[in-house]
Parts: sequence; structure tokens; C-alpha cells
Amino acid sequence: MKAAILTLGNEVLAGKTLNTNSQFLSKSLNGLGFDVVEQLTIPDDEAMIITAVKRLLKDVTLLITTGGLGPTYDDITIASIARALGRELVFHEEVIRDIEEKFKRFHRKMGENNRSQAYFPAESVVLPNAVGTAPGMYLEHGSKIIIALPGPPRENIPMFDNETRPLLEALQNKPIYLEDLVIFGIGESDVEDRVKEGVRVPDGLRLATYVKPLYVTLRLTSTDKTLIQDTVEDLEKLFGDSVVGRNDCLLEEKVQQLLKKTGRTLSVAESCTGGLIASMLVSVPGSSEIFDGGFIVYSNDYKSRELGVAPEVISKEGAVSEAVARLMVEGLYQRSGSDYCLGITGIAGPTGETPDKRVGLTFIALKTPDRTLVRQFQFFGDRNTIRLRGALNALNMLRLEIVEMALE
Amino acid sequence: MKAAILTLGNEVLAGKTLNTNSQFLSKSLNGLGFDVVEQLTIPDDEAMIITAVKRLLKDVTLLITTGGLGPTYDDITIASIARALGRELVFHEEVIRDIEEKFKRFHRKMGENNRSQAYFPAESVVLPNAVGTAPGMYLEHGSKIIIALPGPPRENIPMFDNETRPLLEALQNKPIYLEDLVIFGIGESDVEDRVKEGVRVPDGLRLATYVKPLYVTLRLTSTDKTLIQDTVEDLEKLFGDSVVGRNDCLLEEKVQQLLKKTGRTLSVAESCTGGLIASMLVSVPGSSEIFDGGFIVYSNDYKSRELGVAPEVISKEGAVSEAVARLMVEGLYQRSGSDYCLGITGIAGPTGETPDKRVGLTFIALKTPDRTLVRQFQFFGDRNTIRLRGALNALNMLRLEIVEMALE
Repeated sequence: MKAAILTLGNEVLAGKTLNTNSQFLSKSLNGLGFDVVEQLTIPDDEAMIITAVKRLLKDVTLLITTGGLGPTYDDITIASIARALGRELVFHEEVIRDIEEKFKRFHRKMGENNRSQAYFPAESVVLPNAVGTAPGMYLEHGSKIIIALPGPPRENIPMFDNETRPLLEALQNKPIYLEDLVIFGIGESDVEDRVKEGVRVPDGLRLATYVKPLYVTLRLTSTDKTLIQDTVEDLEKLFGDSVVGRNDCLLEEKVQQLLKKTGRTLSVAESCTGGLIASMLVSVPGSSEIFDGGFIVYSNDYKSRELGVAPEVISKEGAVSEAVARLMVEGLYQRSGSDYCLGITGIAGPTGETPDKRVGLTFIALKTPDRTLVRQFQFFGDRNTIRLRGALNALNMLRLEIVEMALE
Repeated sequence: MKAAILTLGNEVLAGKTLNTNSQFLSKSLNGLGFDVVEQLTIPDDEAMIITAVKRLLKDVTLLITTGGLGPTYDDITIASIARALGRELVFHEEVIRDIEEKFKRFHRKMGENNRSQAYFPAESVVLPNAVGTAPGMYLEHGSKIIIALPGPPRENIPMFDNETRPLLEALQNKPIYLEDLVIFGIGESDVEDRVKEGVRVPDGLRLATYVKPLYVTLRLTSTDKTLIQDTVEDLEKLFGDSVVGRNDCLLEEKVQQLLKKTGRTLSVAESCTGGLIASMLVSVPGSSEIFDGGFIVYSNDYKSRELGVAPEVISKEGAVSEAVARLMVEGLYQRSGSDYCLGITGIAGPTGETPDKRVGLTFIALKTPDRTLVRQFQFFGDRNTIRLRGALNALNMLRLEIVEMALE
């Protein structure tokens, strides 16, 4: 089934707001079996909305609009849709009561202009807004479906996921299941090639790849849950250790899970990443159970004074060397008493290159209760890409070590 | 003058790629005096491109397309535009020689299909691609202008800035100047209200506000450089200390500039932010001149062991308290020998709240050669918003202190 997304937004057209809704909705609709053939953004202008709605409904079965549901004079989405379809607006007493209720909860008084938010075309289903005041709309018009969602992503996303998705699934008479598999350390095209060679994707299952820096996510959707489970298991076998987890599981979350399970704790010593690994770990709620803290040993003084890395080793081997990385985690292990210690030193660039050490050269060390590992990497990219690669590879080294030890 | 942006991209419609080009181009066109009235994304489909180009050129003077300029079979943007306009394609020998040259530089052989990239409608100006192989196009067609740019942002942005912008300025017979003023600590609507009350925006100058988390940028554009300079100075007076700097100057950059100028160094002690302040400082090239390093004192053990915060103070006052923040920076100052020391402790949430200490409560301490300052904040938002607010406010405290001291 063909679908289109219509964004109403002067702010988007002025370049003030990045249109993330269109990507979110396209990805979601794709998973529900729709083909999005157009994403369109136009101003909050009645004539233009009417023209666009009429034109789009000639081509597509499903039209989703975002934005223009507020109480102000330029919020005219619902009224314009009604006019495009030649439908009357009906006042919904229960909607205005609900908005009033919300205002009361925040000890504010509802304005008179909020009454405009209670008018919807006859026969439409009003979609409740769990976060804001503006309700959305689901409307069947002949063989076409028109859905109006609010613009702010924090209202748009939950209204789609909680109110709209079930209605679209019901359209297809079956719920649609979704499973994501997060892969680290393999590029997108390699992932796709390996899937093509290694796994039979059965009929009735959609498989799509999505990329976020350094991760590739395989998204499986189907109306058949067993089909998904079987294929996910095949893919997990195929990609082995490169699978971080299912359903948006990033390395910092996986590391937290693994450490919690084994009751172990972690400290870090960061040079080139300068706190990035720690910051990622702390970004996940619950990190205090597994993360003790660490040292940002950016200067050589810090490396020697805090972690006992001998200045002679630094001047002989260089601050970016296997020896220094090893001494960093060994000093940290002694000092912190944490079960695991990660250390990293590298040349993030753009300066700092020497004839035999290029920008991107990085050493990551891991001290466990059993042993010390040091790995050498040559990363590419700009300063902050190299730092990100360093931080994620450090977390990945720890993940692999814990998983491997558990298997032994 | 009205403008539209047409994105050709199956990847965008599948939700795989976030369309950042449309925002970048809209913002840029806005600064050049154009009104963007439509952003449209459709598949790489000849019939659909032809229909869209014809429809859009009825409404707008300037049409910019992005994507579909590569050498593969689905890269059909230029050919489709030519067909929509009823223009012949002409083979450009110099373009193919240039592409061949680029392949040689990377020790690769050009494929036969790259020849397709050398066909352009008669009379078009070929726009060189400094980064990739795909050239762009500038074409005047009657009173209309059609510009085709490549899809990848790393090619799209420089081709717009370096090749397209001068042509669009020439259209208006004058170069257009641009200056950004970055403001921290005041919300967007407050900034706008204060501008309205406090500054006369002269004719011939466009003033727009843009937001990125916790910053508001005022963008001034005009063909008259003096007009911009005068208004920027008025705005700097109006916003005083809240102005971080001109032209995308973020706090971490400003702090680096100020410390370099005075030849001073910095260390940090982070609890709730967990390395975020350090990571921001290190993200800016050249940070090793001013940033020594620091401590991530996430656990209470770390606070006591590394910075000498007495456990009795922590148990009496709580880890999130003015006393602990003060002791953190004083310990850090002694230990690090840095000229400035920043310390932060707060409740990032979602747990950790007590009856008298709410999620978001944060203490930021700054030790300078002259004194110790501690400020209390009550931040709002989710865990990582609170952490970000903490980190930026810490950098801002340091900035204000250095600026104030320099004035005395």
C-alpha cells in the first residue's frame, strides 16, 4: 500500500527545525508494509494544504500529516483536511473536557482558543495525546485513510506508536511484529552481503538495514512471529560475536547488563577519548551499580602522577604506545579496586602525527581479574570520529571478554 | 523569491537516511533572501521526477534538487530534469576527463557507467565536486533556475557553499553577508522578546533565530556589511554576558580561546556528568594546551580517595551538596596544579531523589587562583538533558569568571 507524509511547518521550511518525524514515520510505515512514495513539507497555509491533500490522495492510500494541531491561528491542519475532503467539522465535548483536565493538572487555565482543538471531521477517531494537549485524528474517507499527528517529536512518536500503529495493523487484519538486531564492527554493505550469502529470508518477512554511526541494525518485520524468531536466530548464528543485542541495545547498555549479571564493577582511564567512555556509561540509568569512576589522563603529568606510568616509559615509547596503555590500566586496577579496568591512549588528530605513528593510532587496554589485554587499532576519520571509534571499541573489548569468559 | 527543494532518494523514503540537506539548504536559502515554500522527497523514478519538476516550476523561481547524480542506473536526476524542460543532453568531454583524473588519483579505474555523469542539458553550468566524483548543475530556463546538487551531505554542503551561493548572490547583483551571534542561558522566546524591545532591526537586514540544545543563535544576513556590524554590536550590548561569541562559537571553544589567551590550564572533577565536560573540552582540536585532565568521581569512594572529600561530610551533607562540590574542587586544585578547577555533583535521575533533594539538583564549583565559587542549580528534563545542562553551565561559569576577571 502506498503512503505519503505531509509535514505542515513554517519552522521546517525556514530551516529552523530538522524534520526527524518524516524519517521516524517512514521507517515505521516501512515496517508495517507500506511504501512511502512522498514526503512533503509545506507552510501552514489553507489553500496549499487543501491542494496537497487532494493531490496526494489521488496517489496514495494512506496520508499522514504532522504539525498544525495546536490552538493558535496558524494551526489549521484539521480544518483544511476537512475542507479538502468536503466534510463538516463536529465539536467534540469530551475532547475539550480532556484538554481542560490537562490544564488543571498543571495548575493553568485553558484559553478560549483551545476550543478550536475540539473540532474534527464527522466520523473521525480522535487520537489521545499522552504528552501534550493537542489530540490527533484517524479518518477513513472512502478507500483512503488520513491520519493527523502533532509536530513535536515527543508527542508525535508516542501517538504513532501507541494510538496509530494498532489501527494500521488492524487494517491488515493482523498485528505486525518487529525485531531489531544490533551489529557492531561490520560495515553496512558487508552485513548485507553476508545476509545474502548466509541466510534465506523467507517470504512474508521484511528485512531492512539501518545505520547509526558504527552500528548496523537489521530490522525484521512480519505478521508471523515464528518467522521472525527463526530468522533472528539464524542471523545471530551468522554474525556471532558481532551481535550486540536485540532491540536498540547499544554497547554501553550491553556492558551494564553483563556487569550487573556478574556483579562486577568498572573503572576507566582515558586519554584521547577524554571522558567519552565514562560519559557513555553514565548516560544509561543504573550505571552507579557497575561504574565506579575513573581518570582523564589527558596530559602526561596526569598519566604519571595518577596512574604511576613512569615518565621514562612515556619519553621512550611515546604516550601513544602499547606499554603506556598497559601501565595505565595496571595502575588504575591497583588504585581503583574495580574488577575491570579499561584504558585508552591514541592520536585523535588533526595534529600529533609522527613519522611512524599516524593520526588514528590507538591502543586500548583491558585489565580483568585474570589478565591484561592490549589491542592496537588504526582508526580513520576526523578527530571526533576517531574518539568515538576508540570509545566504542573499548566498550566492545570489554563486552567480548565478559561473554567469552562466561562461555569457558 | 520563492524556492523549493526536491530530494530524490529511496533511502530517505525508507527512513534509512535522515534528510539533513533540506534543513541546511532551507536555512541557507533563507539567509540569501529566498522563501522556501516546499520541501519534497520522491523516489528516483523518471515519471515522478518529471511531474514534480513541472509542478514545482509553476510555483517557484528557484528549484534545487539533491541526490541521484551518481553513475548507477537509478541516478537519473539530470536526464529527468532535461526531459521535464524539453532540453537535449550534451556530452561534456571535460567532465569525463575530470572524473577520470579523480579515479587515477585514488589508483582506481573509472567504470564505463561513469560516462553517464558527463551528460547535461545544453547551456547548463557544470558545478565541480571538490569531494566526490559527481558534478552538479546550474541551469537557467526562461525566468526559472534549476540547480542539481549531490545527495551526500559531505558533497552537498561544500558544493552549495562554494559553487552555488556565489551564483545565487550574483542573481541578486550583490554578495550577501552573514553573521551569527551565539547566546547561552536565555530561551528562544525570551531572546526574541528582548530583541523586539531592545533593538531596531533596520530595513535590508534579515534577523532569524535558530536553536540548538541550550543555545540560541541569532543569524543576521544583509547585502550591507555595515548594517550587519552595527546591529551585531547593538545585540552584543543588549545580551551582554549571555553572548558566547560570533559564528558558531560554542562554550567549549570559547573556554579554550580564553584559557589560551591567558596561558592558564584546567582540570575537572565530574560526578553526575561522568566525563561529559572533559569530553566536550577534548572534542575541540588544540585542547591539550589548556586541558590537563581530571577525575570521574562517580562513586563516593572515588570522591574520598582521589579528592580527599571526607566520608563524614558525604554522609552528613549528602554526595550532592554544596560542601561536597567545594571539597571536590579544592582537593582537585591541590592535586592537579591546574590554574582552574571545575567540579560538579548532581542528581541526574531518574532515581536518587530524596524528600528535600529533587532530580536535577546540581552543585557546580569553580576554583580559581583567587577564590572558590559554588552555585546551586535545579535543572529539568530527562537524565541526559540534566547532564548536558550541568556540563554547559559548568563551562559557562568558567567563561564568565575569566571574562569578569579580565575586566577588573
